[in-house]
Amino acid sequence: MKGRDFALLTDLYELTMMQGYYETGAYNRKVVFDLFYRKNPSGNGFAITAGLQQAIEYLDGLHFTEEDIAYLESLNLFSEDFIDYLRSFRFTGEVYAVPEGTIVFPHEPLMRIKAPIIEAQLIETALLNIINHQSLIATKASRVVHAAQGDPVLEFGLRRAQGPDAGTVGARAAVIGGCVATSNVLTGKLYDVPVKGTHAHSWVMSFPDELTAFRTYANLFPDACILLVDTYNTLKSGVPHAIQVFDEMKAAGTLPEKGYGIRLDSGDLAYLSKRARQMLDEAGYPNAVISASSDLDENLITSLKLQGATITLWGVGTKLITSDDCPAFGGVYKLAAEETESGDFEPKIKLSNNVEKVTNPGIKKIIRIYDKKTGKIKADLLALEEEEFTEDSDLYIYDTNAKWKSMQLPAGSFTLRELLVPIFVDGKLVYECPKAMDIQAYCNREKDTLWEEQKRLKNPDIVPVDLSDKLSAMKLKLIEAATMI
Amino acid sequence: MKGRDFALLTDLYELTMMQGYYETGAYNRKVVFDLFYRKNPSGNGFAITAGLQQAIEYLDGLHFTEEDIAYLESLNLFSEDFIDYLRSFRFTGEVYAVPEGTIVFPHEPLMRIKAPIIEAQLIETALLNIINHQSLIATKASRVVHAAQGDPVLEFGLRRAQGPDAGTVGARAAVIGGCVATSNVLTGKLYDVPVKGTHAHSWVMSFPDELTAFRTYANLFPDACILLVDTYNTLKSGVPHAIQVFDEMKAAGTLPEKGYGIRLDSGDLAYLSKRARQMLDEAGYPNAVISASSDLDENLITSLKLQGATITLWGVGTKLITSDDCPAFGGVYKLAAEETESGDFEPKIKLSNNVEKVTNPGIKKIIRIYDKKTGKIKADLLALEEEEFTEDSDLYIYDTNAKWKSMQLPAGSFTLRELLVPIFVDGKLVYECPKAMDIQAYCNREKDTLWEEQKRLKNPDIVPVDLSDKLSAMKLKLIEAATMI
Repeated sequence: MKGRDFALLTDLYELTMMQGYYETGAYNRKVVFDLFYRKNPSGNGFAITAGLQQAIEYLDGLHFTEEDIAYLESLNLFSEDFIDYLRSFRFTGEVYAVPEGTIVFPHEPLMRIKAPIIEAQLIETALLNIINHQSLIATKASRVVHAAQGDPVLEFGLRRAQGPDAGTVGARAAVIGGCVATSNVLTGKLYDVPVKGTHAHSWVMSFPDELTAFRTYANLFPDACILLVDTYNTLKSGVPHAIQVFDEMKAAGTLPEKGYGIRLDSGDLAYLSKRARQMLDEAGYPNAVISASSDLDENLITSLKLQGATITLWGVGTKLITSDDCPAFGGVYKLAAEETESGDFEPKIKLSNNVEKVTNPGIKKIIRIYDKKTGKIKADLLALEEEEFTEDSDLYIYDTNAKWKSMQLPAGSFTLRELLVPIFVDGKLVYECPKAMDIQAYCNREKDTLWEEQKRLKNPDIVPVDLSDKLSAMKLKLIEAATMI
Repeated sequence: MKGRDFALLTDLYELTMMQGYYETGAYNRKVVFDLFYRKNPSGNGFAITAGLQQAIEYLDGLHFTEEDIAYLESLNLFSEDFIDYLRSFRFTGEVYAVPEGTIVFPHEPLMRIKAPIIEAQLIETALLNIINHQSLIATKASRVVHAAQGDPVLEFGLRRAQGPDAGTVGARAAVIGGCVATSNVLTGKLYDVPVKGTHAHSWVMSFPDELTAFRTYANLFPDACILLVDTYNTLKSGVPHAIQVFDEMKAAGTLPEKGYGIRLDSGDLAYLSKRARQMLDEAGYPNAVISASSDLDENLITSLKLQGATITLWGVGTKLITSDDCPAFGGVYKLAAEETESGDFEPKIKLSNNVEKVTNPGIKKIIRIYDKKTGKIKADLLALEEEEFTEDSDLYIYDTNAKWKSMQLPAGSFTLRELLVPIFVDGKLVYECPKAMDIQAYCNREKDTLWEEQKRLKNPDIVPVDLSDKLSAMKLKLIEAATMI
């Protein structure tokens, strides 16, 4: 997002509300907003956060250009004073966030913004857009990678992504979620991520025959020779021609130890892969890779694995890059606290007929509790910022809505970690973003903090996210006060 | 896409194939690629093309920056000669395309590229990305707008869109498909599209009470005073407070004739809207608008209409901007012809076990046949570029796969129109893009060329797309030749 003029990447109502705050004179009153989500996408047991780097780039460069100002003036909606204020607008607030690649759960603040209300309001839409999108794709990628059971998964979706950003930062998020590489060269350049790809049907079609096409490709790229075998007839023409070319490479001494093979892009992948494996093995190429790509997702990969398909490299496009079964991550941005005249922060709540939609008030932190012996997550605790917890005392936690779901954790049996880390302090960036591949490595370690049952793709076991006593009591009090209105 | 460095917005295999063509010396051989799709999204009876302006901006500015070159060198995949070639790369080809906002059907080339193979290959991925995305959203928007039966539909999806582009050009596409405005201010600025929006729950929560929040808003924006009434309790608090504020505006003489009202964002919209209508009418505000927004899509709007909901302004977010039920438009880019040594073009075909996936060979055009009396589409005809058709002779068309599905059209009973228009000639742009709102107006006229049965959201009647005799015969011959291999 660096260098892009995104001050207007916002909903109009943010600007009308900003003018409202400006005109009423209360625009510098500080507020706290939480960015959180309510439901894991695709029925997953958790989500993976992503997009923080782009959110930071957005906030760090945020200003209204002369063009932006001229456009806003043309709308005849805003006062001259307010427009003048926008000319020198900068983000001066504080941001805490969960680092990218972290396992997170519903109702946890992924970002916590403390800023003058006029600033906090403007940034709502863009932050949601960026974090929602990348967290969605990182989570979907982790599902696909989980289904592949250790086989490498390549992200191939640029052509079906919802626009250039969806393809480009989407591929970045897919890598964070576990894809080993992407086909998108721009993502490779921007985020230092491995890029992969060989050839398309058009390559084969542009030669007089398939054999010549394969042979030419093998001459040019002997070290990355994955031949697409389904342009005419996979088993009658494609695989035999590939074998013939491997024979020629072997004779010429150009066949590598590994990294060569075939790609299936249509047809019955279970059957075709098994037959192709047999043909390649019989020809003396047990190392030849069988890769596949054809509207794959975690369900199809699971099914192919169950059927004994011999595919060991998965190219996943459309359904990953759009998160086909669940194309939106429902992140929201809700007011949690507001500065009073005295400078304290007063907690705020939003009610709803739907219990799940009632917000958690106050300035909060997330305490992750790990089992000391296994390193697995026991539970997360949402607590007020000023609360202190220690590994040296027993800890009792419980589900506010179902108090019988509780845990007594003896001192010494657990370790604690705060998930929210400082990103901006007084508008100054204090955080250095790791590189995408380092985030992937961190995310892989994060996945190890869950049990297999929690990573299951269907009906996973759910990690508890409980509220501290104090937060729980504050929430109840505010609900009672609000329902008196 | 103007000013963005998108030469690397491509799949790696495009570049490896380009190097392949470069090394084999055949890279300047011209080819023809068709960009088409195979299936209408969301079970619709047609699609609406969009994205051409951004595709043009991409092609027009296409070049490799020094940064791009340095990155490609760092991959150790490409030869020095080829990299040198890329330094002066420009698109020099010919592009024909269907104008944005046009009703189109499966298998019709939305774009036809004739260019040296090395150029035509590079641009595949970005063109597909851009056209797929915007055509998807334009088509989804037209479904939502159709369900609203003439009520205005606002696009509100930026915060849930798949990244900034998806939100911004996505909103442009939504407007092309029929949304009257967007909440996305950047889209407003970039594409001269109306922007709309009032306030959020956080506005209400940031005041001591709802009434003060409403009153303040009404003072600031009396001409666009749509009050969000569901922060605390819609019928007990929100609507009565809104009425109280309208009373105060009336007394002060600031209440406009129309353009004021309420917004419902949660709960049972059918029930709440009916009760709110009654309350507003009884209070003397029959002109007050009831707008709604809450995970709406064409199905929910249809259902609310059937239930007698009194909503007349629809804010549609997540499910439109992601095309929730069908988040990808399956556009593909297939080789259709190739220059021979003699300079002629030889038609090319791609076979598949799936009949629907066999491509249409040759350099083609799309002839749209209208009924002269009604102005409705009778059928589309895919024909070879050199074929001539006239309105002065009878026309007989038929479905190649089901010859009994035929039409005899007497001379004088129909009019003809070619859908593909020149965009680039010899790399020079020869087309001027209309503005988004003009494309919307054109698209509305396009919708009038369909019968209601064809616009139906479920199981619509399908407009026939037939092949000309010549194209049909060519296709059959190529299939026969290919299956001999």
